[in-house]
Amino acid sequence: MSVNTFGRALRFTTWGESHGPALGAVVDGCPPGLAVDEAVIQPFLDARRPGQSRFTTQRREPDQVKILSGVFEGKTTGTPISLMIENVDQRSKDYSDVAKAYRPGHADYAYDAKYGFRDYRGGGRSSARETAARVAAGAVARLIIPQVRITGYVVEIGGDAIDRDNFKTDEIGNNPFFCPDAAAATRWEALLDQARKDGSSLGAVVECVATGVPAGWGAPLYGKLDADLAGGMMSINAVKGVEIGDGFAAARLRGEDNADPMQPGVDGPEFTANHAGGIAGGISTGQPVVVRVAFKPTSSILIPQPTISRDGEASEIVTKGRHDPCVGIRGAPVVEAMMALVLADHMMLHRAQCG
Amino acid sequence: MSVNTFGRALRFTTWGESHGPALGAVVDGCPPGLAVDEAVIQPFLDARRPGQSRFTTQRREPDQVKILSGVFEGKTTGTPISLMIENVDQRSKDYSDVAKAYRPGHADYAYDAKYGFRDYRGGGRSSARETAARVAAGAVARLIIPQVRITGYVVEIGGDAIDRDNFKTDEIGNNPFFCPDAAAATRWEALLDQARKDGSSLGAVVECVATGVPAGWGAPLYGKLDADLAGGMMSINAVKGVEIGDGFAAARLRGEDNADPMQPGVDGPEFTANHAGGIAGGISTGQPVVVRVAFKPTSSILIPQPTISRDGEASEIVTKGRHDPCVGIRGAPVVEAMMALVLADHMMLHRAQCG
Amino acid sequence: MSVNTFGRALRFTTWGESHGPALGAVVDGCPPGLAVDEAVIQPFLDARRPGQSRFTTQRREPDQVKILSGVFEGKTTGTPISLMIENVDQRSKDYSDVAKAYRPGHADYAYDAKYGFRDYRGGGRSSARETAARVAAGAVARLIIPQVRITGYVVEIGGDAIDRDNFKTDEIGNNPFFCPDAAAATRWEALLDQARKDGSSLGAVVECVATGVPAGWGAPLYGKLDADLAGGMMSINAVKGVEIGDGFAAARLRGEDNADPMQPGVDGPEFTANHAGGIAGGISTGQPVVVRVAFKPTSSILIPQPTISRDGEASEIVTKGRHDPCVGIRGAPVVEAMMALVLADHMMLHRAQCG
Amino acid sequence: MSVNTFGRALRFTTWGESHGPALGAVVDGCPPGLAVDEAVIQPFLDARRPGQSRFTTQRREPDQVKILSGVFEGKTTGTPISLMIENVDQRSKDYSDVAKAYRPGHADYAYDAKYGFRDYRGGGRSSARETAARVAAGAVARLIIPQVRITGYVVEIGGDAIDRDNFKTDEIGNNPFFCPDAAAATRWEALLDQARKDGSSLGAVVECVATGVPAGWGAPLYGKLDADLAGGMMSINAVKGVEIGDGFAAARLRGEDNADPMQPGVDGPEFTANHAGGIAGGISTGQPVVVRVAFKPTSSILIPQPTISRDGEASEIVTKGRHDPCVGIRGAPVVEAMMALVLADHMMLHRAQCG
Repeated sequence: MSVNTFGRALRFTTWGESHGPALGAVVDGCPPGLAVDEAVIQPFLDARRPGQSRFTTQRREPDQVKILSGVFEGKTTGTPISLMIENVDQRSKDYSDVAKAYRPGHADYAYDAKYGFRDYRGGGRSSARETAARVAAGAVARLIIPQVRITGYVVEIGGDAIDRDNFKTDEIGNNPFFCPDAAAATRWEALLDQARKDGSSLGAVVECVATGVPAGWGAPLYGKLDADLAGGMMSINAVKGVEIGDGFAAARLRGEDNADPMQPGVDGPEFTANHAGGIAGGISTGQPVVVRVAFKPTSSILIPQPTISRDGEASEIVTKGRHDPCVGIRGAPVVEAMMALVLADHMMLHRAQCG
Repeated sequence: MSVNTFGRALRFTTWGESHGPALGAVVDGCPPGLAVDEAVIQPFLDARRPGQSRFTTQRREPDQVKILSGVFEGKTTGTPISLMIENVDQRSKDYSDVAKAYRPGHADYAYDAKYGFRDYRGGGRSSARETAARVAAGAVARLIIPQVRITGYVVEIGGDAIDRDNFKTDEIGNNPFFCPDAAAATRWEALLDQARKDGSSLGAVVECVATGVPAGWGAPLYGKLDADLAGGMMSINAVKGVEIGDGFAAARLRGEDNADPMQPGVDGPEFTANHAGGIAGGISTGQPVVVRVAFKPTSSILIPQPTISRDGEASEIVTKGRHDPCVGIRGAPVVEAMMALVLADHMMLHRAQCG
Repeated sequence: MSVNTFGRALRFTTWGESHGPALGAVVDGCPPGLAVDEAVIQPFLDARRPGQSRFTTQRREPDQVKILSGVFEGKTTGTPISLMIENVDQRSKDYSDVAKAYRPGHADYAYDAKYGFRDYRGGGRSSARETAARVAAGAVARLIIPQVRITGYVVEIGGDAIDRDNFKTDEIGNNPFFCPDAAAATRWEALLDQARKDGSSLGAVVECVATGVPAGWGAPLYGKLDADLAGGMMSINAVKGVEIGDGFAAARLRGEDNADPMQPGVDGPEFTANHAGGIAGGISTGQPVVVRVAFKPTSSILIPQPTISRDGEASEIVTKGRHDPCVGIRGAPVVEAMMALVLADHMMLHRAQCG
Repeated sequence: MSVNTFGRALRFTTWGESHGPALGAVVDGCPPGLAVDEAVIQPFLDARRPGQSRFTTQRREPDQVKILSGVFEGKTTGTPISLMIENVDQRSKDYSDVAKAYRPGHADYAYDAKYGFRDYRGGGRSSARETAARVAAGAVARLIIPQVRITGYVVEIGGDAIDRDNFKTDEIGNNPFFCPDAAAATRWEALLDQARKDGSSLGAVVECVATGVPAGWGAPLYGKLDADLAGGMMSINAVKGVEIGDGFAAARLRGEDNADPMQPGVDGPEFTANHAGGIAGGISTGQPVVVRVAFKPTSSILIPQPTISRDGEASEIVTKGRHDPCVGIRGAPVVEAMMALVLADHMMLHRAQCG
């Protein structure tokens, strides 16, 4: 059993490999009557699209989305929305190295162990190219929850964190790193140039905030809003950690410092802190939902690594080709998409049970 | 829609409130023919049971499990296993404070916002008492994967971490903290005594390692082994963060330092590092599976907190009663149980697809 | 993987064997705030309860339901509702016959083939006693859709059908057969007395009509309202056929005779026929939903049957004990319960997607 | 929530409308290593393809399937298999009649009631064209269970049944009706010619038999093999009834006549009858699995029907265009496909639980 479907009331299924003819997503359960066409979806794919700066892979993919079903006269019909993105720059390079040996940090060995063989071209199904399909699906999800504003950005690269005092939301789109701190963005340029020069790679931490989420979304106990966010984020390529609100830092706080006190407000209850990241008992509290996601450094590096061949012989491998020196950067739009998909799903789940 | 079921091939559903007559789990999909009775399950519940030291809640619950179905002549039959634990020490205290106002950090406000009202006695469904049901289910899951050894322990309380050089597996059962470092355990006694004296509480980090997991378990892309672990762990009460392998620290490593090189070994491929925590591309690699889970400090504290009443009026609340000063401690057996449940599920999922 | 859970937004899981200590259902996803207690559920169990006439099994089970969770101060809380029914009349008879040989028509051989062994006492999990749990769950489901009226009744026993001209809804409760035709009920008494005298058994057809279902429920294509009804009904013990509206008879009609023409009505669109049984394209039309369900004759009969032993030797078996001479009779309340469960689920699914 | 996914371990999701650019299926969970390419799938689509005789719609669709993912070097990889079929003969006819008024027997009114509007071109999502996607998915499913032989055929058209004494499996492919009785096929020609001449349509009954299914498949209680077959078959367009084995006829048998006695056989247990249709207690018995499916007459007829317009005004409608005079005929390959999909799913479910 493989599980290429995510969600409960709003469900999407993705398909496609890095070097196949196309990849796509089928979004099922979308409410009817929402205005959508390719132009609505495309900007989100463009944000994730590779080749836009020297800090991402140079693979040239236009990532043009096509809507194949579920939309009629410019509106969703309530039936499955099939979204397809054709692969156009699958370079006919020689994959014999990758076919023969396992790249450390990649899924090569695990896929072989599980399935007996693998589509080794560009990582096949385990390639981060799959995230294009999620981003397309996420663009549909956003339409379902127009009251919610979702902002994803990189807060740390290679251990160099932003200065929260320099946080400017408008800055996020002004640099190739989705970085809200202009000074950090400048430092990161140098960091990444050096890493590329070294044939190495860097990790990153992406933060994502959703505002406008009303109190009450979440399906305890095993469909808690934070549980679904954690599962969804951890399913993104290269992710190794997820935290909600203060996350691991909360484990170092005392009870009184971690509490989010309440007070009466003009428009209802107000919180005077948000250590919880907008979720309590698995249910949204009305505060901003805050998630932080750790991306490991790209596993494809030019520095030779000891490994074994498919035959079990000692070997060494260098991963040439076109790769992101920091896969976490382009993770920001993907994290945003997963946030949208989880929230839209939970809006509908809540409506199902509570009207 | 609420979601009180977890798992795909091995599924369990939990039910019950803190102060209802009982709580339980129905485990569905268990393979037939496994030897089990109450005595097999009880030790795991005993490990989680409250009231065993001054560092956990003083509520006296024997947590005796009863098997109501699915077992015949001492063996699982393949039909649903219904496990029930009766509540016996629901103290008839006065809950009027909790009924009228929202305890910061608790799910009180979120439950009211979602459902319109709530069972306020001891937190109702949002109480960590629910984890007893998971632990019982987890004991069944262990029987399905006897080749796997799962060890959970606390690596940090209140920001005070263990010394990895002092790590002794045998030490875990020798102190009331599931702590593998005897020196840390001694320090934690003092830390917790002080926190209790202050009417405060502390957070903790639990680590869990599963050895004996063969390469090949995991159902990419949305049922990745790490994604299911993340979702499962995040669904545990008070958890705010989950990481696999190096987790957030991996985001600070360079590619070559994060790689897990391979070499031929006596019994097949070997890895010379395990930054990945035993999972690549969502599939187990055969290395130990390593998860780390952050527990926030217990929200029930004696230090008064500003809050609002159900009527929206400004108020203040003190959470009296019997509470764990550090809910993360008893989290260790719960994290172990979730690890077992996820792994057993994935063994079966893998068998379904790959034979 | 076994599947003891039914439903999507409203889900229930049943557990328990014929001769275990108890059986039950966990109902998950119920909307909050619905008034319920044991007294609300009990009448439905009483309708299905055995031993109320000489035409059903003489096993004496009070079938008293207990609510163990999910209800607080007389209202559903939105958390799982655990319903338990204790078995009290598991007669300590000698099961050696059944343990050693396979009863034709029963699931004995199939369970052994699947699981390697079986709980042979009273059929174990394959016993129709499980339907008590569904009926309890169904009573909860009815609360979710108070606008819907569900009526199940027997239209045929042993090939002897009711006369539709004699149909009186009020008659259904006046005889031990849930029969709406008083004359047929009288004939059936004789039929069943003869069958019992012969040590034989009879089959039956149950019809169930739900009125008050608005147009728009159903989740095409694989969660069509009729598909879910068909799956749900076919899962009931002894059921071998399901039809919607005219069902198999529709296959013998010409297009113009099977059409359900429409006309303007006082309260909106009206249909002048209901061959479709209230469902088109998998979605309710606002007309009464009509389902018909075929029950085979009870497999437990006193007439000896050739069979084989567990060891594969030729044998013969007579099924003594307390059995329904026509299991379809008590099927009527079970069919009603499944109708309620499917409809409540679909009300919530529709609300999730379409608001 | 809409549900366009079917299955549990082997799951497929279909998408597409009658007059959109394409339709397709994503098959998830397929075991790795199975040899497949378009040529393996195409014959099943060809069997269902319209326009092959005057007894099916004259819409000219080549129904050429493309494999977009999940296959590498001619073998399934274990990742999702995306199958696409382009629509090429969506005739640009005038749909204003259908757009404005509801066709009796069709899903027009129900879709409008549910979603607020609908893609009226050729029935949109509710068109039987969707079944092409199932047939493609079914061709993949067959590869998973090569030991099983599935044969679907028409046993009755317009109330005229085949003579079982004339049953010849080889005859099924010799006539345009999938009819195993040559004499009946001749009669049906005349029947259908007359119906077409009258502007009317006829219903049909399709039977499907699967041999080679071992004892033990099926996931009681809510994933019983027969329950899943019933749900799957009922989800096919125009289906109004499903029965297993003797089905409704079993309700007219006495217990001793409905029993399937057993005896020792050369290759293990043998049954001397198969009233049960190869399923007991929801689990296969090793006997042939027998399903019978009732198709209503095509709703698109030339005989005028009273109806209402979208505005609720009285109207009349005639459904012109290219339609099957008996949609049940082409139902045979679709029923076969659903049988394959359900059986392959259950083979994997059984393997998951029982090894």
